[in-house]
Amino acid sequence: MFKELFNPRSIAVIGASKDESKIGNVILKNLISEKYNGKIYPINPKISDIMGLKCYKTLKEIDEKVDLAIIVLPAEYVPETVKECVDAKVRFIIPIAGGFSESGKEGELKEKEIKEYLKEGSSRLIGPNTVGIYVPQTKVNTALTDPDKISYPKDGSLAFISQSGALGLLTMDSFADLNVGFSAFVSLGNRIDVDENELLKYFSSDDKTKAVLYYIENFKNGRAFTELAREFTKKKPLVVLKAGRTDQGVKAASLHTGALGSDDKIIEGVFKQSGVIRAYSETELVDYARVLAYQKPLTGNRLAILTTAGGVGVVTTDYVSASINGIGLKMANLKKETKEQIKNIIAPFASAENPIDITAGGGDKEYREILGILNDDDNVDGIIVYALFQTKYVTENIIDIIKDNIREKPIVVGVIGGAYARDMLRKFEMNNIPAYPSIERTVKAMKVLYTRGEYLRRRADQNGSY
Amino acid sequence: MFKELFNPRSIAVIGASKDESKIGNVILKNLISEKYNGKIYPINPKISDIMGLKCYKTLKEIDEKVDLAIIVLPAEYVPETVKECVDAKVRFIIPIAGGFSESGKEGELKEKEIKEYLKEGSSRLIGPNTVGIYVPQTKVNTALTDPDKISYPKDGSLAFISQSGALGLLTMDSFADLNVGFSAFVSLGNRIDVDENELLKYFSSDDKTKAVLYYIENFKNGRAFTELAREFTKKKPLVVLKAGRTDQGVKAASLHTGALGSDDKIIEGVFKQSGVIRAYSETELVDYARVLAYQKPLTGNRLAILTTAGGVGVVTTDYVSASINGIGLKMANLKKETKEQIKNIIAPFASAENPIDITAGGGDKEYREILGILNDDDNVDGIIVYALFQTKYVTENIIDIIKDNIREKPIVVGVIGGAYARDMLRKFEMNNIPAYPSIERTVKAMKVLYTRGEYLRRRADQNGSY
Repeated sequence: MFKELFNPRSIAVIGASKDESKIGNVILKNLISEKYNGKIYPINPKISDIMGLKCYKTLKEIDEKVDLAIIVLPAEYVPETVKECVDAKVRFIIPIAGGFSESGKEGELKEKEIKEYLKEGSSRLIGPNTVGIYVPQTKVNTALTDPDKISYPKDGSLAFISQSGALGLLTMDSFADLNVGFSAFVSLGNRIDVDENELLKYFSSDDKTKAVLYYIENFKNGRAFTELAREFTKKKPLVVLKAGRTDQGVKAASLHTGALGSDDKIIEGVFKQSGVIRAYSETELVDYARVLAYQKPLTGNRLAILTTAGGVGVVTTDYVSASINGIGLKMANLKKETKEQIKNIIAPFASAENPIDITAGGGDKEYREILGILNDDDNVDGIIVYALFQTKYVTENIIDIIKDNIREKPIVVGVIGGAYARDMLRKFEMNNIPAYPSIERTVKAMKVLYTRGEYLRRRADQNGSY
Repeated sequence: MFKELFNPRSIAVIGASKDESKIGNVILKNLISEKYNGKIYPINPKISDIMGLKCYKTLKEIDEKVDLAIIVLPAEYVPETVKECVDAKVRFIIPIAGGFSESGKEGELKEKEIKEYLKEGSSRLIGPNTVGIYVPQTKVNTALTDPDKISYPKDGSLAFISQSGALGLLTMDSFADLNVGFSAFVSLGNRIDVDENELLKYFSSDDKTKAVLYYIENFKNGRAFTELAREFTKKKPLVVLKAGRTDQGVKAASLHTGALGSDDKIIEGVFKQSGVIRAYSETELVDYARVLAYQKPLTGNRLAILTTAGGVGVVTTDYVSASINGIGLKMANLKKETKEQIKNIIAPFASAENPIDITAGGGDKEYREILGILNDDDNVDGIIVYALFQTKYVTENIIDIIKDNIREKPIVVGVIGGAYARDMLRKFEMNNIPAYPSIERTVKAMKVLYTRGEYLRRRADQNGSY
């Protein structure tokens, strides 16, 4: 049902402006410059044309039915404009401005008025008080940020639903830098109509979307969410950054979005029961979503580590095995024949024990052989591979080598370094191989593959039919 | 005493080679291309000149006393070459090759032989089995990495001592990308002579060095370290990534550097007693060292947060107040007059409560005023400031604004985003303002300022004379 929201045939920008300091200018410019392919209808009674487009006085002047109307007018004009949209049978309405329930009683009344108008037709509304949506594939972008200072992500397989517009945009900016792609971003705003539950349902059957991530301060309907999430996570992973987990955080959230607190232990329990992967930061949110989107869950807890840098192997081993400052999984006991095969390949002073350290003299060639050997060892459930490009023998070819070796066992890659390493991280990402710029992030990504695997096994045990 | 190591007047490269696949070629090329200013003496009996330099047959041929000799020959030739260096009164010797005690009994014998030769003179030795040293200021670089695939850090105030050469180099590569500067890097190797304790003593009185960081798998002399560290941390911060903290990690370390395990609880106790800040990853290691080098310790646990993005404020509040997935400090209760002053500056729907959220409509101007106000509030011990450049009103000027406002209270900055944000992170770093690319890293940096402050207060209590 949200197809026309993310892929609208036409967009009206109500409040389009020639004044470059106005949101109505920025949003229109973003739509045009990003090459949105549908029809754009700028609306402003005072001007006749803008940025080469005819400008309309009102919605009524437009012959065609409008799929999406972005309202960039201040709060006081929003209720009547919503009414006009409803009357014109606009399918989706996004009022950007703040100044509603989050700012006091007057704003609450405006929201009530809007809700009444919505009842009179079939239009649906995102927000108000929102940056709206960003859809890389269709180039629909209602965000008001300065394009010179932000990078928007490319098309991809993650759907991001956020109760905070800014946190969503700047998180996507961070990960756009690593080439991470998104199928859609929705800033919920005050969600007086469309909420996260409806969107989750939609993304459940959206083929493009392989994982969903939430930033949320409170659930609009916790009971409904619990049931929906339980259904959703049978099919796809759901990663949630639930803010307001401390008393102080709850207070901060109530000032931010008006969110009411809920006992974090209950949240924790709901997440466990319904298979939600919990993230504690914006970094974990996307790190976890992409590993879950690109890799199979772990079928067991025994990990092998492959590296050219011994120290990195040791620190990784600590993180794998420790419960505090670590993920509490196991180092795989490699089979005797595995170790013998590896010994034949590597230098005499290198290590065929797990963590396998082929030292700086090893590279692509050894990685290909050893990954093949590890794939054949039943004692290994998953493999952490470091692609450390600082030495001569680890080259870009290692990306294909790793790709060829992702079979039944999940592989997560660590790439540590500066500009060159970042280029390589981008290339891994283009191949849907989850790669991370630090030891801790690499290991933690592997952990969520275990958490999800365990959850799916538990459900299968409970109910043979899944 | 290590002055001639880090600032040698002359360097001999024993084993210089014209063959580009040889270490003796790469190291010589690195010295020349990075513009090391002293004299370079390539040594190879088979050639007469190399890269425009006269090539010497032996050390004896050189008239001048050599400050530093890099031995790039294979292990079997190292002992006799060390003897030649000792006879020629070379001050410092760095044998790069592996193949010593880390690889078995034969290698152990070679080390014994080297130790005997060292007794015959006053030469000192780093390694063997090391990447040696990197000193940005004097351009002394003995690492054998491919300069096209690694960035070396600029001159700065952090001294890095590492038991793993590779881990050290790739960590510096990561942070060179953010403009983090180092006063010196030393790869300890098998440390048959110079060890971390001696170096720590040296950096204690090196004015350039504001903080020292260690990657270490085992201490050469734990008791001596404890005493030294206790002295050192009175003056300067010391951050240690001690690997091998789990049984599995100890096993991995023993394969890597031959490190013997030590009970991690004892290590933990030693660190607490001697004021060592513990890092668990390569990222924490440098993140912590630079905040400690650039900022005063916290005098209390009450933090204020200043942001333009509400969601970032909420997540930060959670991290500040939570003990699990957080740092367990307090959100400052802002004074009444503080809140009133802030209210007068910000938009009506913005928040003057802590976390202070001036919303996307606020920027540089408000930051300058509010930071001034927070500096005057006795209820605030430290300030976490987000510089989120995605909006229009937060500009590069914010760097100077923050700089002007670093007075008695430490400030740590969060900058989240992609390429533009990274540019800004680099500029913060150039101003010695600790800035971090994620919420979690920003908050954790503030925590170590608290840990160090608490330690210094505890010592002052124990002994009035400090």
